[in-house]
Amino acid sequence: MNEQKIPYKIYLSEEEMPRNWYNVRADMKVKPAPLVNPGTLQPMTAADLAPVFCDELIAQELDNDTREVPIPEEILGFYKMYRPSPLVRAYCLEEKLQTPAHIYYKFEGNNTSGSHKLNSAIAQAYYAKKQGLKGVTTETGAGQWGTALSMACAYLGLDCKVYMVKVSYEQKPFRREVMRTYGASVTPSPSMETAVGRKILAEHPGTTGSLGCAISEAVEVATSNPGYRYVLGSVLNQVLLHQSVIGLETKIALDKYGVIPDIIIGCAGGGSNLGGLISPFMGEKLRGERDYRIIAVEPASCPSFTRGKFAYDFCDTGMICPLAKMYTLGAGFIPSPNHAGGLRFHGMSPVLSQLYHDGYMEAVAVEQTAVFEAAEFFARTEGILPAPESSHAIKVAIDEAKKCKETGEAKNIVFGLTGTGYFDLVAYEQFNNGAMTDHIPTDEELAVGLAALPPQPKA
Amino acid sequence: MNEQKIPYKIYLSEEEMPRNWYNVRADMKVKPAPLVNPGTLQPMTAADLAPVFCDELIAQELDNDTREVPIPEEILGFYKMYRPSPLVRAYCLEEKLQTPAHIYYKFEGNNTSGSHKLNSAIAQAYYAKKQGLKGVTTETGAGQWGTALSMACAYLGLDCKVYMVKVSYEQKPFRREVMRTYGASVTPSPSMETAVGRKILAEHPGTTGSLGCAISEAVEVATSNPGYRYVLGSVLNQVLLHQSVIGLETKIALDKYGVIPDIIIGCAGGGSNLGGLISPFMGEKLRGERDYRIIAVEPASCPSFTRGKFAYDFCDTGMICPLAKMYTLGAGFIPSPNHAGGLRFHGMSPVLSQLYHDGYMEAVAVEQTAVFEAAEFFARTEGILPAPESSHAIKVAIDEAKKCKETGEAKNIVFGLTGTGYFDLVAYEQFNNGAMTDHIPTDEELAVGLAALPPQPKA
Repeated sequence: MNEQKIPYKIYLSEEEMPRNWYNVRADMKVKPAPLVNPGTLQPMTAADLAPVFCDELIAQELDNDTREVPIPEEILGFYKMYRPSPLVRAYCLEEKLQTPAHIYYKFEGNNTSGSHKLNSAIAQAYYAKKQGLKGVTTETGAGQWGTALSMACAYLGLDCKVYMVKVSYEQKPFRREVMRTYGASVTPSPSMETAVGRKILAEHPGTTGSLGCAISEAVEVATSNPGYRYVLGSVLNQVLLHQSVIGLETKIALDKYGVIPDIIIGCAGGGSNLGGLISPFMGEKLRGERDYRIIAVEPASCPSFTRGKFAYDFCDTGMICPLAKMYTLGAGFIPSPNHAGGLRFHGMSPVLSQLYHDGYMEAVAVEQTAVFEAAEFFARTEGILPAPESSHAIKVAIDEAKKCKETGEAKNIVFGLTGTGYFDLVAYEQFNNGAMTDHIPTDEELAVGLAALPPQPKA
Repeated sequence: MNEQKIPYKIYLSEEEMPRNWYNVRADMKVKPAPLVNPGTLQPMTAADLAPVFCDELIAQELDNDTREVPIPEEILGFYKMYRPSPLVRAYCLEEKLQTPAHIYYKFEGNNTSGSHKLNSAIAQAYYAKKQGLKGVTTETGAGQWGTALSMACAYLGLDCKVYMVKVSYEQKPFRREVMRTYGASVTPSPSMETAVGRKILAEHPGTTGSLGCAISEAVEVATSNPGYRYVLGSVLNQVLLHQSVIGLETKIALDKYGVIPDIIIGCAGGGSNLGGLISPFMGEKLRGERDYRIIAVEPASCPSFTRGKFAYDFCDTGMICPLAKMYTLGAGFIPSPNHAGGLRFHGMSPVLSQLYHDGYMEAVAVEQTAVFEAAEFFARTEGILPAPESSHAIKVAIDEAKKCKETGEAKNIVFGLTGTGYFDLVAYEQFNNGAMTDHIPTDEELAVGLAALPPQPKA
């Protein structure tokens, strides 16, 4: 294949866009462990989950066998508003690095939510609408997921209640206004609106909130209001299913030009982007058809893969959700407040956790100052101001490209550029002013969260 | 042509992208009036302009005859990083409006500058670099142009000094940080760094600045520092030339599907976007090959086309720049501080002014509350959060589509969506809170600026 013919950006035509999501669980020999009831430690059934989640999403959550799930026409229509996202050949970055590596990134930031989150938001909102619900509740941290969900709900005419981690609500008023412009109600969490919020506020009066705490509030509101269900932007199996559209498009685009990736890199918070990006490649790897090096990149301040424990844990701080088996730092773990780089969730997708546990992927933890250095370098070279989360992947992609320079190997490196950093300028300002520092938790600090894991089901 | 085949988004391949800019002046029977020296009232020569502008840009500024200007390879390479921009068929908007009209928009917001400004920024920075300069100076209001220029300069390794209208510098710290991330120096204007800044501050100690004042400072710094030139993001002929890439791509995309626009709509501040979008269509109109209805949309608070005077005037408040013949409200005119919608410049591109004067286009003025209503409706329907500037065009496009609903006409409406509103959330917040009002200047208010026009050259 003539390399000259690879354009700067590969866009699929509407006909080439995927019409099915791909469920990587179908190809896993060891399936991800089921969600369990924290009281009985028994697997959650569809009936157990029905008060919290929409019926069709529960079916997707529990279905470890169906390989291809047709994307409903209405969702395909919405996808066409902002998809396909471009697969970019980073010619400028390659030249600046003087690397023989070929670098590609799948850029998911060209939509108003600023990230890939919209891929699952529209799916979850669609199934809620189809079930005849009035609205959905959710939590948001940095605000990308909340924005995505409010966009999807505005499109479908659903009510949208967002519980936004208080520190973000205060530090990111613009994110809040985007959600309001899309008609969502946005409440700082913890709030006095919920029992769990009141409890947390009573115990920790000055708290600025956490994702786990906002999840607890959103779940409580969904389960106590008729016509509402809770939706979540990461971690869940269903989310990885919807996000597979990222990887599928990436694979179709690469296949068009006969490019086979050697290394695939994604940032990992709850796993939604990484799980989506790698899914079809992981499928080939699981089926023994082809091997890829797959790298998850997480912040050194919140190192669930590299320093967490593979165990059952709560997804939320309020401990009202089912237990998931995952790499976790403990539901009580909250990263240092000086951590600006996103990816602050204490746990990790059960699917990715199982794959990591079984040796199908690697993980590295990187420090935020190095991440922002890579982000600035990338912005100046490729023109896109990346989200701090995405910049974790950039950092490792650059590191791998530099290794190629040393060895002279022309590896194909593919990474996920999940979104833009337009709402993260407070962190960039901190970096620009030389005021950013790193915080790596000590073993003692981590031991506190890990010691508080709930009772484990018997194997 | 089968309408079903028109995709949601039309992307050109790299091969289809324009390789020449189009200079609409070549097809104008009455050319735009030349810039004149405010002292002598004689036309500015290339030598007169050389201390301010790069040589090759001066040649482009003065060249009313060359129809096609080849885009240098280096600029084509940069364009490929973020172009082609999509031409979007607004299926969702059409359905929501229940209009038989077919609505298309050219979306220029998918780059970090958030607007079309990058098209001219890279060109101007490229010619500065080619001339061996150290750097460039400029002004920025809302910050889109400053961001675009700092991106272009970062890419080429040029120094970039931005004078940012003080009120924006303070109200838009995030814009400032984006520019700093791209390595630009950003100074609030008026500043004590320049003679003109000190003079303005002495006369108006509490001033929050204006675009005209920031222009004066940037020009002074460029002309008093060896190795620097001044660059401007709008108004100038050269800018319209570079921005013709918008219209050329639009036309190629429409031609691919056999679509002939009936109405072409763009917002108009200094004219960079509108001039670029309409140029190839205006060329056909000027050559008598085809007729189009072309509508400029301006804010009712800053109505240069609809209520200004077609006369020679200064482009800057400090009155150190050459005079341009244009529709103007007077160089002293500053829109009401409650005007949030951008497009605050007192004058208008001389090319567009001449075309408007000669009856080749229409202009309408719209109020900002109506503009933000349209913006919010558009955001919820098409998913993109538009810049307030762009939303002026959205407002009129929706109005025209509603007229089509009444008459049953399936007109093809094309408008320019110049950028995104991610850095305009203060204005959206004002609108969301019901705190936005309109301000239409009275005839008496306008008379002040118009009375202060400089002496006019003899015809």
